[in-house]
Amino acid sequence: MNKLFDRGQVEQHNAALSADINADFEALGGMLARRGQDIEKLTALAQTFAVALPSWGVGTGGTRFARFPGKGEPRNVFEKLDDCAVIHRLTGVTPAVSLHFPWDKPTDANELREYAAKLGLGFDSVNSNTFQDQAGQAHTYKYGSLTAQDAAARAQAVAHNIECIEIGKALGSKGLTVWVGDGSNFPGQQNLRGALERYLDSMRGIYAALPEDWLMYIEHKLFEPAFYATTIADWGTSFACATELGPKAKCLVDLGHHAPNTNIEMIVARLAQFGKLGGFHFNDSKYGDDDLDSGSINPFQLFLIFNELADASGRDAAFKPSYMLDQSHNVTDPIESLMNSAVEVQRAFVQSALVDRATLAHYQGQNDALQAAQALKHAFRTDVSPILAMARLRSGAAADPVACYRASGYRMAQAELRPARAGASSSGIV
Amino acid sequence: MNKLFDRGQVEQHNAALSADINADFEALGGMLARRGQDIEKLTALAQTFAVALPSWGVGTGGTRFARFPGKGEPRNVFEKLDDCAVIHRLTGVTPAVSLHFPWDKPTDANELREYAAKLGLGFDSVNSNTFQDQAGQAHTYKYGSLTAQDAAARAQAVAHNIECIEIGKALGSKGLTVWVGDGSNFPGQQNLRGALERYLDSMRGIYAALPEDWLMYIEHKLFEPAFYATTIADWGTSFACATELGPKAKCLVDLGHHAPNTNIEMIVARLAQFGKLGGFHFNDSKYGDDDLDSGSINPFQLFLIFNELADASGRDAAFKPSYMLDQSHNVTDPIESLMNSAVEVQRAFVQSALVDRATLAHYQGQNDALQAAQALKHAFRTDVSPILAMARLRSGAAADPVACYRASGYRMAQAELRPARAGASSSGIV
Amino acid sequence: MNKLFDRGQVEQHNAALSADINADFEALGGMLARRGQDIEKLTALAQTFAVALPSWGVGTGGTRFARFPGKGEPRNVFEKLDDCAVIHRLTGVTPAVSLHFPWDKPTDANELREYAAKLGLGFDSVNSNTFQDQAGQAHTYKYGSLTAQDAAARAQAVAHNIECIEIGKALGSKGLTVWVGDGSNFPGQQNLRGALERYLDSMRGIYAALPEDWLMYIEHKLFEPAFYATTIADWGTSFACATELGPKAKCLVDLGHHAPNTNIEMIVARLAQFGKLGGFHFNDSKYGDDDLDSGSINPFQLFLIFNELADASGRDAAFKPSYMLDQSHNVTDPIESLMNSAVEVQRAFVQSALVDRATLAHYQGQNDALQAAQALKHAFRTDVSPILAMARLRSGAAADPVACYRASGYRMAQAELRPARAGASSSGIV
Amino acid sequence: MNKLFDRGQVEQHNAALSADINADFEALGGMLARRGQDIEKLTALAQTFAVALPSWGVGTGGTRFARFPGKGEPRNVFEKLDDCAVIHRLTGVTPAVSLHFPWDKPTDANELREYAAKLGLGFDSVNSNTFQDQAGQAHTYKYGSLTAQDAAARAQAVAHNIECIEIGKALGSKGLTVWVGDGSNFPGQQNLRGALERYLDSMRGIYAALPEDWLMYIEHKLFEPAFYATTIADWGTSFACATELGPKAKCLVDLGHHAPNTNIEMIVARLAQFGKLGGFHFNDSKYGDDDLDSGSINPFQLFLIFNELADASGRDAAFKPSYMLDQSHNVTDPIESLMNSAVEVQRAFVQSALVDRATLAHYQGQNDALQAAQALKHAFRTDVSPILAMARLRSGAAADPVACYRASGYRMAQAELRPARAGASSSGIV
Repeated sequence: MNKLFDRGQVEQHNAALSADINADFEALGGMLARRGQDIEKLTALAQTFAVALPSWGVGTGGTRFARFPGKGEPRNVFEKLDDCAVIHRLTGVTPAVSLHFPWDKPTDANELREYAAKLGLGFDSVNSNTFQDQAGQAHTYKYGSLTAQDAAARAQAVAHNIECIEIGKALGSKGLTVWVGDGSNFPGQQNLRGALERYLDSMRGIYAALPEDWLMYIEHKLFEPAFYATTIADWGTSFACATELGPKAKCLVDLGHHAPNTNIEMIVARLAQFGKLGGFHFNDSKYGDDDLDSGSINPFQLFLIFNELADASGRDAAFKPSYMLDQSHNVTDPIESLMNSAVEVQRAFVQSALVDRATLAHYQGQNDALQAAQALKHAFRTDVSPILAMARLRSGAAADPVACYRASGYRMAQAELRPARAGASSSGIV
Repeated sequence: MNKLFDRGQVEQHNAALSADINADFEALGGMLARRGQDIEKLTALAQTFAVALPSWGVGTGGTRFARFPGKGEPRNVFEKLDDCAVIHRLTGVTPAVSLHFPWDKPTDANELREYAAKLGLGFDSVNSNTFQDQAGQAHTYKYGSLTAQDAAARAQAVAHNIECIEIGKALGSKGLTVWVGDGSNFPGQQNLRGALERYLDSMRGIYAALPEDWLMYIEHKLFEPAFYATTIADWGTSFACATELGPKAKCLVDLGHHAPNTNIEMIVARLAQFGKLGGFHFNDSKYGDDDLDSGSINPFQLFLIFNELADASGRDAAFKPSYMLDQSHNVTDPIESLMNSAVEVQRAFVQSALVDRATLAHYQGQNDALQAAQALKHAFRTDVSPILAMARLRSGAAADPVACYRASGYRMAQAELRPARAGASSSGIV
Repeated sequence: MNKLFDRGQVEQHNAALSADINADFEALGGMLARRGQDIEKLTALAQTFAVALPSWGVGTGGTRFARFPGKGEPRNVFEKLDDCAVIHRLTGVTPAVSLHFPWDKPTDANELREYAAKLGLGFDSVNSNTFQDQAGQAHTYKYGSLTAQDAAARAQAVAHNIECIEIGKALGSKGLTVWVGDGSNFPGQQNLRGALERYLDSMRGIYAALPEDWLMYIEHKLFEPAFYATTIADWGTSFACATELGPKAKCLVDLGHHAPNTNIEMIVARLAQFGKLGGFHFNDSKYGDDDLDSGSINPFQLFLIFNELADASGRDAAFKPSYMLDQSHNVTDPIESLMNSAVEVQRAFVQSALVDRATLAHYQGQNDALQAAQALKHAFRTDVSPILAMARLRSGAAADPVACYRASGYRMAQAELRPARAGASSSGIV
Repeated sequence: MNKLFDRGQVEQHNAALSADINADFEALGGMLARRGQDIEKLTALAQTFAVALPSWGVGTGGTRFARFPGKGEPRNVFEKLDDCAVIHRLTGVTPAVSLHFPWDKPTDANELREYAAKLGLGFDSVNSNTFQDQAGQAHTYKYGSLTAQDAAARAQAVAHNIECIEIGKALGSKGLTVWVGDGSNFPGQQNLRGALERYLDSMRGIYAALPEDWLMYIEHKLFEPAFYATTIADWGTSFACATELGPKAKCLVDLGHHAPNTNIEMIVARLAQFGKLGGFHFNDSKYGDDDLDSGSINPFQLFLIFNELADASGRDAAFKPSYMLDQSHNVTDPIESLMNSAVEVQRAFVQSALVDRATLAHYQGQNDALQAAQALKHAFRTDVSPILAMARLRSGAAADPVACYRASGYRMAQAELRPARAGASSSGIV
């Protein structure tokens, strides 16, 4: 991979675009200066941004109906890291990868850690998987994992999570994300309260194994794979459980895991206020957990979420939730989608920094709803693309990541190196 | 009113129907006996049921587009009580009325209490109103009440709630229900966290004025009248606030106040588990806060809610949430709708008692989703109408409340006694 | 199979239950007689009911996250028919099976037809599959089938549908159901109008191959597998297309394929009014295309749909839409779920016959919303289980299909005869 | 009004801002030129844009719970026109007003037409009102208007619509918009098909009175004021009715009248394809028919709608749907909200013109979903504010309409000229 994206190749790409980028940057700089904003400060801020990549995101996704594989999909965790390294090389904003076990379980954690380090990558929080049965598994999760009626299945799920922590420690992770699909498809199938009691009991066992400097992220989701009742269905349940478990337990917000019409930025504000906002799985959706590219459906919503994060940061400089992409790329090259998506999230971050918070607070104090709203819209409307491009130039990443990637021939090269296997899903999730 | 519904009139009505009811009761009793159920026990249980009436429910409701008044609408709190007494007289399950201030504010609370007592009625929790401006009010609630930026508006709203408590004490109420429409119509209009901080600060002031044996019910609602963000929008926020405030603060569940597709019975289970389920506003809905008649759109959902209540009661005999109807009757005679609705809620209560909880738990323990589901469906499918009719006969209420009411000519008599006033809404809410 | 469910075995089961069923039937008959209803007429009507089975429904379903296979799943179309025959033997209401190609493609259609006939089964409409790529397929459907940009992919999809018609003709089917997942995941991915123009062009080609006495069913669905825009997303598009194509094209309503809050019974009424209601895929859902058991989530909605069908039948005796179950059984034995679901649909059919349409029309004419609503609720509340059981007894089916099936040991026997294959999905859909 | 906004006042405002606007315009022009776009062409296009104002929008709106009036609300149709003229004077894009009868019914239509002409205003389509009862009205609409069971009520509603046409002819309107709230709150209340048959019968009577050069716009809405079933609930019903009625009947799309998760731009594409797209009521919403300011909640959706309109225009130069704002301004000055909203719709129009349709079609043809999506996002991300400001400067409107309006003191002046009336709603709708 290094050969494909050596400094020279990216520099050549950047050189060809830098004149236009400089001109656009200067033009935007002037426009911002006339509004009292400093483009250099914003560019420096943009360079501080980072969002983690999901190891499972570099394979082609699918639905319960079908998966249409792409070419050159990674076949193991090392190849997944290779792809992630391309993304980071070209965008400069994705320095860490989030692994999923047992899919990514290494034979030798040190070897994996060193491999990643050479690629310039670290490891974000690790993810457990108790929503599938693995070959040879003693107890099925068909009827639940952390909530199962069967005590042996619960114990197995707890043990798996603790094993994830152990691997994560060896890799340098600092967090465990727990998402379970547990729930029911029929009214009456489960005692709703009993299921949550078992969940809390199981989670206490996992929490006890958490190192002092780790956090545990509880991820809720309204539905799928359970279609009548999901045990951790909403932020209220997530919050109540995180409160029960203790200070190392936090809530994770996935943008596609809410009921229709839900005001997600308000949930962000609530969790921040009550000290339980742990982090995000970024993506976009129109109907359910669609796992579409971040910012592709409702970019203003993404901005409003970052507006809440900017508000929270302004109140507490130590506030630092975890950011990760979590998407399913069914019809695009996953590397391209992840690059664009990382930039979209960075875009919302920079736009939120454009909000003049003193002015906003002034209008809010005057009940001037119209101008308060415009204070946000003004920031959102600003096309910060030149800032993002300049931040990449200055960080040594690519001016236009997708163009540079396409020019490189990386995917075609991988298609030869990684021949397709019949019926195989690289991610584990179709 | 007493003249209209004296014992003789109802007895005559019941006499005409009792043969059929007895025959149906016997037939159902046999069917239940073959399933190991005792109809007498269920009938006795049915007679214990009660649900409160909303004083504002006896007037014709409307929408923001129009209100089409009915005939003989009550013009003051005494006439509202008269109508409520009719409902209780004929159904036997609505012994208490929930008042709303300032709409129902009495000149003399003792007089009102005595008037109600003569009608056989008591008072349920009282309701404050800070979602409208009253004539002569010093500070507007246009931009919020308990959350207003304006400290004077907040103080006024707190004082009004405390006044509601004072009136309630004089009337014998034991609870205060607080619903505020506070929120915003534009992203940016309010600082979402600041608004909730002000809410909590205001609520602490009200909480401090609450008598020891009172409860405070926090009512959440997804939207309307605020259309972008509502401060108390979901059960998570309600729960977090009730937790902050203390043990006398509980959450109130209105069936129409949730996002589309929300599993309401699960919210009921969660609040019960965490000790914060205060009570219900019963109604039904298809789209939003439609305030339709209870059980008219999704009767199985109502049953599933009572199934959770039965589960909670089985775990804690002291568990006793508050039940109230809260509906808007736009196209029916409100008395008729309230009678039918009270009976529908009672129906779900009796059906939930038909669930064999040991059998259900057995199937759940076996992961036998199909039979567990059937255990609920079996209870729900049972037509308990003969039990409800017999319970009314035995309680001295009417076998068929609507038929008895129509035969009485009560509405026509009121239409003469209470001539319509142009443009007036009897409830305050259109 | 015949050995497992020979007449003797079912008769023995029925004999054990017949006393109770007779007693319940007599009790209900008395209750109905007191309301002027004739239980014998209703029972005879119940015996006329039929709903088709989906061949893919007898395998265990799953989600994009996982599939947890059950024991003894059928491995080919003959074994699927065996299971369907069990369902029909025990319920008496599922005489036809709907096949899906290429999953169920027979080597010899005559052999398959004879096999089915021996089992007492016929064939309902056939289903094409252009939402998956099959091994060795020349052109991918990754970017669409009937709407694909690639003319060769479109031609391939059209040819496949025509082949389905050919097989169907050999089997005795009289309809083709066309569901395509075609759509897009990104705004801009497709020209929305261009995609529908290509769809119509493709469908005209298929329509031209339709025999005179066949119907073509257009099935719409809001989302999944496409997550931004689905070409045939709603009944409006389905209706417009069916109108464009001609009189043999009709619309098919799947209960889980609508936007949240949609009034499905109204869609049924609209399509019936405009002559385009072709048939149904029955199931239930709470969130999306959950494919849960019919009547398990919102039984009143199922009743209201049959109420519209009863209304349409009353207007036109020739009105006869097609009925089929289409469900995904992820946590239950598919045979059990299909038996219960067939009975639930039959239940709604019988309940809708209980509606006194003259009385209903009278109340509607009087704008007596309350009593009109009660006319429906009265019918829905009636527990017609004794009628359904008696209809089964009289048809020679099982009094309690699930109990009889469980007692038979059929599933355990199949588990031995049909050993599990690693990773295989019996249905093709996980 | 002319005194407040004489040429000098606006020119002075513009003069103070023109230097910055010129600089921004030049900067943006350079950026666009580097992308091959001509800012002058876009500016000229922006100047062609127009959207009509709703007469009822200049009063403060409300909800069923309360209306909090603003200062200086117009008290009659002349004052409404005064306010509309301010909006047009400052934005340059709202040359026509849509009236609502009987609210705006003139004593002398010629006088009103001349009054408007002097203000530089014309009249857009007229609106009938059969969702409220007017004082002295012979037949109530409580149970429906065009669909009422009562033939006299239907005839009255038809006559009212015909009267609206007559007034509209005198005013120079060319269209009639028909929105009815008709529907039901209970299953069973109405025969769903019967109601639509009566609707069609009534509409045929109105259609017959339509001048040759007029269009009739059918407006659908999912719910409210009817909460179970609305007769014209979705675009499918609207389309079927428009088809039944004839070529002068078209469908009107209000952005807040759809089920949750609906893809509105797809409905636009469908109606355009089938020749039935009549026009729009622009606004924004998060939950239901929230009637929020256009572009305030989901600006990307507004852009995507205009992207479809650009596509349709590219296919047929004669394609020209009607544009109108329809919003409820509950917490802002209506004049300010309408000015901002008109500019937001114009913004989406200009952004959609930035889409390079040949490039987009190229990517679509290649199934390059990523770059096709970026072709839209690229256009949407462009901040066209300098183009809009320059278009206003060149049209003689205000550089910053809200700032110019606030500086003028217009509202305060009206507050003195138009004292508040107790309880009065200027719009008729709270």
